[in-house]
Amino acid sequence: MHVQVLHGPNLNLLGSREPTIYGRVGLAEIDLSLRELGQELGLVLDSFQSNHEGELVDCIQRSTSSAGFLINPAGLGHTSVALRDALLAVGHPFVEVHCSNIVARESFRHQTFLGDIALGVIMGFGADSYTLGLRALVAHLRSEPV
Amino acid sequence: MHVQVLHGPNLNLLGSREPTIYGRVGLAEIDLSLRELGQELGLVLDSFQSNHEGELVDCIQRSTSSAGFLINPAGLGHTSVALRDALLAVGHPFVEVHCSNIVARESFRHQTFLGDIALGVIMGFGADSYTLGLRALVAHLRSEPV
Amino acid sequence: MHVQVLHGPNLNLLGSREPTIYGRVGLAEIDLSLRELGQELGLVLDSFQSNHEGELVDCIQRSTSSAGFLINPAGLGHTSVALRDALLAVGHPFVEVHCSNIVARESFRHQTFLGDIALGVIMGFGADSYTLGLRALVAHLRSEPV
Amino acid sequence: MHVQVLHGPNLNLLGSREPTIYGRVGLAEIDLSLRELGQELGLVLDSFQSNHEGELVDCIQRSTSSAGFLINPAGLGHTSVALRDALLAVGHPFVEVHCSNIVARESFRHQTFLGDIALGVIMGFGADSYTLGLRALVAHLRSEPV
Amino acid sequence: MHVQVLHGPNLNLLGSREPTIYGRVGLAEIDLSLRELGQELGLVLDSFQSNHEGELVDCIQRSTSSAGFLINPAGLGHTSVALRDALLAVGHPFVEVHCSNIVARESFRHQTFLGDIALGVIMGFGADSYTLGLRALVAHLRSEPV
Amino acid sequence: MHVQVLHGPNLNLLGSREPTIYGRVGLAEIDLSLRELGQELGLVLDSFQSNHEGELVDCIQRSTSSAGFLINPAGLGHTSVALRDALLAVGHPFVEVHCSNIVARESFRHQTFLGDIALGVIMGFGADSYTLGLRALVAHLRSEPV
Amino acid sequence: MHVQVLHGPNLNLLGSREPTIYGRVGLAEIDLSLRELGQELGLVLDSFQSNHEGELVDCIQRSTSSAGFLINPAGLGHTSVALRDALLAVGHPFVEVHCSNIVARESFRHQTFLGDIALGVIMGFGADSYTLGLRALVAHLRSEPV
Amino acid sequence: MHVQVLHGPNLNLLGSREPTIYGRVGLAEIDLSLRELGQELGLVLDSFQSNHEGELVDCIQRSTSSAGFLINPAGLGHTSVALRDALLAVGHPFVEVHCSNIVARESFRHQTFLGDIALGVIMGFGADSYTLGLRALVAHLRSEPV
Amino acid sequence: MHVQVLHGPNLNLLGSREPTIYGRVGLAEIDLSLRELGQELGLVLDSFQSNHEGELVDCIQRSTSSAGFLINPAGLGHTSVALRDALLAVGHPFVEVHCSNIVARESFRHQTFLGDIALGVIMGFGADSYTLGLRALVAHLRSEPV
Amino acid sequence: MHVQVLHGPNLNLLGSREPTIYGRVGLAEIDLSLRELGQELGLVLDSFQSNHEGELVDCIQRSTSSAGFLINPAGLGHTSVALRDALLAVGHPFVEVHCSNIVARESFRHQTFLGDIALGVIMGFGADSYTLGLRALVAHLRSEPV
Amino acid sequence: MHVQVLHGPNLNLLGSREPTIYGRVGLAEIDLSLRELGQELGLVLDSFQSNHEGELVDCIQRSTSSAGFLINPAGLGHTSVALRDALLAVGHPFVEVHCSNIVARESFRHQTFLGDIALGVIMGFGADSYTLGLRALVAHLRSEPV
Amino acid sequence: MHVQVLHGPNLNLLGSREPTIYGRVGLAEIDLSLRELGQELGLVLDSFQSNHEGELVDCIQRSTSSAGFLINPAGLGHTSVALRDALLAVGHPFVEVHCSNIVARESFRHQTFLGDIALGVIMGFGADSYTLGLRALVAHLRSEPV
Repeated sequence: MHVQVLHGPNLNLLGSREPTIYGRVGLAEIDLSLRELGQELGLVLDSFQSNHEGELVDCIQRSTSSAGFLINPAGLGHTSVALRDALLAVGHPFVEVHCSNIVARESFRHQTFLGDIALGVIMGFGADSYTLGLRALVAHLRSEPV
Repeated sequence: MHVQVLHGPNLNLLGSREPTIYGRVGLAEIDLSLRELGQELGLVLDSFQSNHEGELVDCIQRSTSSAGFLINPAGLGHTSVALRDALLAVGHPFVEVHCSNIVARESFRHQTFLGDIALGVIMGFGADSYTLGLRALVAHLRSEPV
Repeated sequence: MHVQVLHGPNLNLLGSREPTIYGRVGLAEIDLSLRELGQELGLVLDSFQSNHEGELVDCIQRSTSSAGFLINPAGLGHTSVALRDALLAVGHPFVEVHCSNIVARESFRHQTFLGDIALGVIMGFGADSYTLGLRALVAHLRSEPV
Repeated sequence: MHVQVLHGPNLNLLGSREPTIYGRVGLAEIDLSLRELGQELGLVLDSFQSNHEGELVDCIQRSTSSAGFLINPAGLGHTSVALRDALLAVGHPFVEVHCSNIVARESFRHQTFLGDIALGVIMGFGADSYTLGLRALVAHLRSEPV
Repeated sequence: MHVQVLHGPNLNLLGSREPTIYGRVGLAEIDLSLRELGQELGLVLDSFQSNHEGELVDCIQRSTSSAGFLINPAGLGHTSVALRDALLAVGHPFVEVHCSNIVARESFRHQTFLGDIALGVIMGFGADSYTLGLRALVAHLRSEPV
Repeated sequence: MHVQVLHGPNLNLLGSREPTIYGRVGLAEIDLSLRELGQELGLVLDSFQSNHEGELVDCIQRSTSSAGFLINPAGLGHTSVALRDALLAVGHPFVEVHCSNIVARESFRHQTFLGDIALGVIMGFGADSYTLGLRALVAHLRSEPV
Repeated sequence: MHVQVLHGPNLNLLGSREPTIYGRVGLAEIDLSLRELGQELGLVLDSFQSNHEGELVDCIQRSTSSAGFLINPAGLGHTSVALRDALLAVGHPFVEVHCSNIVARESFRHQTFLGDIALGVIMGFGADSYTLGLRALVAHLRSEPV
Repeated sequence: MHVQVLHGPNLNLLGSREPTIYGRVGLAEIDLSLRELGQELGLVLDSFQSNHEGELVDCIQRSTSSAGFLINPAGLGHTSVALRDALLAVGHPFVEVHCSNIVARESFRHQTFLGDIALGVIMGFGADSYTLGLRALVAHLRSEPV
Repeated sequence: MHVQVLHGPNLNLLGSREPTIYGRVGLAEIDLSLRELGQELGLVLDSFQSNHEGELVDCIQRSTSSAGFLINPAGLGHTSVALRDALLAVGHPFVEVHCSNIVARESFRHQTFLGDIALGVIMGFGADSYTLGLRALVAHLRSEPV
Repeated sequence: MHVQVLHGPNLNLLGSREPTIYGRVGLAEIDLSLRELGQELGLVLDSFQSNHEGELVDCIQRSTSSAGFLINPAGLGHTSVALRDALLAVGHPFVEVHCSNIVARESFRHQTFLGDIALGVIMGFGADSYTLGLRALVAHLRSEPV
Repeated sequence: MHVQVLHGPNLNLLGSREPTIYGRVGLAEIDLSLRELGQELGLVLDSFQSNHEGELVDCIQRSTSSAGFLINPAGLGHTSVALRDALLAVGHPFVEVHCSNIVARESFRHQTFLGDIALGVIMGFGADSYTLGLRALVAHLRSEPV
Repeated sequence: MHVQVLHGPNLNLLGSREPTIYGRVGLAEIDLSLRELGQELGLVLDSFQSNHEGELVDCIQRSTSSAGFLINPAGLGHTSVALRDALLAVGHPFVEVHCSNIVARESFRHQTFLGDIALGVIMGFGADSYTLGLRALVAHLRSEPV
């Protein structure tokens, strides 16, 4: 079972970027944790980060053999219908995660174009949002409890 | 370390209540899973369900020795400032969970009075929302990764 | 066939409470009329009033053997998602009634959290709203004209 | 005592028009039921249907000797100030009825220009909405319970 | 110079209709005053009242030889784009009048679909709104002071 | 196969009415083009214009043997629920057309009560909107490309 | 009978100020016309212009012996509750006039804080708005037709 | 003369609850101050705190022999129509008080369902809001200055 | 300790101005009561009324040696950012008072530009609002209970 | 005469992507139809698809020698001011097309940043929207009927 | 070439007023800098500060021989239509400046009644906003680059 | 000291693009002026234009050694949270500039996602907006007056 992890704009700066909001764990470390958890869960896992909406859309379109997506859309979540349409087009189940608690921040971050078509949303736990999200996605795909 | 679990109105019907939305796992089963996970994580865990806003407020006020809350406010999350105020008054960290993906339902369910003061929010994974939420809460309380 | 009648907060004061708005008929008198009409229509009918949202939710949950509800939610109709969720959870057909014409009053009374999941809504006819509502509910349950 | 029944646009198609929403009873059948109930209640009753707002306004203006109106404004209820003004000008009490439960449909149907000046509103009971409405109107005109 | 006067729905009831709002002067009397003022000002004046939007539109379209319109759209002013389009299509200058002070009434009466394409608007002076409006229209057409 | 063409209020003035917005082609010319195109496509085609909402509703109700409608509702598109209800009641597929680009005009023209229940909408191409709309409707009815 | 005329900010520039909007007649000329019409109608008339809200409020408070006000509040009409309160405090009937057609201009000009407490409003007729307004005010004060 | 004091949810925590917002004075101390002031003013005074909306409604209904209420609705002020209806039903004059300055906090706290039916509102003075409110209520009941 | 009292526009008319709303006590009487209470509390107190926003701003700027302000901004409270900025610039604590209960009046009176930067707000108690406000201000300045 | 066709994000998936909404015709097939129609109409036609907003902007900027654009902006239509600005900068006439009927879908799809500056808009006809749009564009460019 | 500088309410307190927001440079210093820059640029420059809207309007009206205005409206920018109308009446080009970054402050400061009729707006640079604004105004007046 | 200049989408067309709005100066010319001014001010200055949001984000992320940014986000300013997040992540001070006066254009241009986190904003002065912005940025960085 293959899972594609997607990181939106500026997440390559995780760890150094506004650490009081986003935490001090870097993206490489997050990807490592996810790969380790993936191994434990028996998954093949690929990770892709881009600051370009179009590249994220391309990546989603290419991932037709994945079983699902784990996606942190970052700022694009609030502005990109193209990302939503790509996820709808491919049709795989996906989990949306955010490191920060987006409902506790500026009002334009309170809603995303992805949340209502996701399996579920996890926000506010820093790097842990990703590992929790991966567990949730795999449990859904296997119809097993977490 | 003690964690108080709170279930809002109508969650006593979980399993039979609109199962296409809320899943088929009952509340007793959820509480059992949480207790098992609690043991595994070295926690003492109490669970309380009520259809009465006031009883939930009372329970929060009594829980001064808890380290944190895991709360599914159900319908009260969208209407109760009293619940918010009780959580603010006691001041413990808490995680808000929802079985259904509330941003994919009626617009009056898209926001809660608790989300912006929670550590984080987890929604959409049925009974798994609880176990994910407990993991997230404990990780935060111990400053460890999930 | 059993029908559960539910009266929301402050309806115990009907008759003395703002009579120019709510009429001069008291709740006991209304319940009597409903029981008489119930007998005429061959129904068993129970009536429950509470000023507590939670007790109304509990009562709805207990009424699993009823065929339907006749409910005047009073002020809770405009604020209680928990009541809505309880009615959705039990899933019986119900009719919502109001003594006053709520669309002719303050704007916060113009909509309820129950109306869109009710069979129908009757408002503005004082105590008659109840008897009309009971006739409508029974006609629906028996698939007969009123 | 004379009561004027008014049917707005497209109600001549009742029975065949979107029967899952409006029911399978035709307008002739409804008018017959109303006349029978009228006889039982000792009323003279006239019925008028039109797809033309102006003709409905004309009919209301001509009905100066009626004691009240039973009106299903259909789509005009959401758009016609002229209908409201005609009812205000003549000043007779009236009951507004709808076959479908308008608060459970598109948001532009949730409010009407007539509801706040009506005695009361009945919605959602198909053809029964009319007979319930006639009972309510006559009870009001005679200051008797239904 | 010919001026077409247009009266919208329910204005045939002026004088008897809600006299505390609209005053006690009837439409015939208003038309007489306008004809007298018209004679004084050297105008030919026609008056047309209808409860039918379509007839008012027809009348405006037929009035190609008029120099301008004096129009009290009544309730249609708040709901009819067709009336606006007819006035735009014919392109004559017009004055909008209202007997009542529409900005002191229900909020849905505060704006009309005609006001922003009129020469000007006069509201609140009962039957005098018409005579003031006619003076204003003629002054404009002759580029003279009132 | 029969197609009913419907023209709303003021479209009888096409060609002379605000030609910079609506173009210089008159309604007779448009109907001629449509008839010619209809012949070419093997259709029987009737055309009906009215300034009266009620007459348009009547016409739609009478057209039960038509395969579909081509409708330019003009100003009524923004204000008439009755027209929407008539189209829903008859249930034939229809195409909505506008000569002007309504989203480039006053904000109250940006949406219509018909668009979301139409097959599709074509706006902004003057008289060509009609011929394009007829092609689109027939292609749909025959499940063929345009 | 004394009438106080009030001119708000920038009206001292009438005639030269944006003449395509406000016309080419100056304030002195308007005051002269009003005085002449006042004499004809048997009135004593005073006129006061100020760019200062406070001075207009002072003037209204001093005018306790006036029978009514003719007021063009200009820009203050859209922003001054103090002006409204002064007119309410003194309690004399008044007519609000505007040279330009305010509902055809920027949206912040569409409503005033005075309109709903005025006898009526006249807008769009340049200097004629004043003379029409004076006629309307006097007719009201004398309960005579204009 | 009897006055009923009502304290809403979480006010039992006053003094320890968010002291930078609500102050450091506890509820017992406030009740003592009110009783002392009550004695000074010749009042009998009862105090009731509850976290349950329904108990507050019950208490209001029982207080028919009180001359008035002093109420701090806390979080329920922003959400409870039932509390409003209870106060309207009993009809005694009441003063609404808040320890914190609610218009300086989250926007959902800016308005209450009670303020517009209260004699007046006092907010922002910590425990002093109560004593000021009691003075204001008694002055009103005795038609004397404070 | 010096306190500056500020009265906004039209408050010089208190007592005669709309007495059912504002009460029958005049401004001189209010100032006298405040001076008496001031003496009792050991204060030096100055009072200033103006109908001019600029003069109120000037007065606030001159009051650098005052310990705080007691301000009834009247209509300017709803419209003046300049007043807010003056109070922020000088930085003294102040209490906002209103004779009428502004949240029970027109919606444009429900909020002020001052409330959120005040210590607290007192509204609805007529002349008593001032004396209550002075007590509250002094208690705050001296960190003593009222 | 050269026409540039532009396809926005995810349109490369047409045919397989949500076929109940977008139809079963693929992009290659659409481009072929357009080229065939182009040949018939004597056009040179280029087609460009991208998931990248920036590449679409680049393409528009490069197309200075085109006579016009046929553009399906897909999801970018609802979010991209840059696309609007590019079309305004180049200034060629263009037609906006959508396969689905966007006004019958989620509310965030009801308006686009392009519609009001387009010649016209065609929506809802699947692949036919393109061919109809090309006919409309060419008719406009040649000032001929379709 | 003469330029009139206008400073709105409370700007006389610049330097001491909320220095973290407005900076530590006083108004005299700003006027000196502007005069020095004016000399350098060959300008005659007058400066006027007032806390009175009316005096600012008067000053604008008197400045008919100025080539343009440099205006910091301060709080009046958000509330004064009279100021807008004065600038429109005189018709000189003007630049609006703010010391603070108004879009980073309370939402009621985000827009001004002047911005859309100004040449341009400069905000956020403390005292430098003025000197930058003067350079921009003069460059525009002389059609030269800054 | 290094300053990075960023130009958003379509700014490569400056000079030819809608010159009545954006002016006739091209981007090369602007960059030249900025470099000359940079030399005069002792700066090293790099300039980057892209139509791709992702490339602008990449460029901001790479500029860790710059002292600040001068950015004209063009259309992306109204739609890109990713740009905001990149600027927040890098944390350098920046100035936002616009050639046109964005508050005088379409309402969707009135606010940007960057303005409230910028030092300040300059709009409306064509190419001069850039040179003014550079002066403002450098003055801030050096804590000197412009």
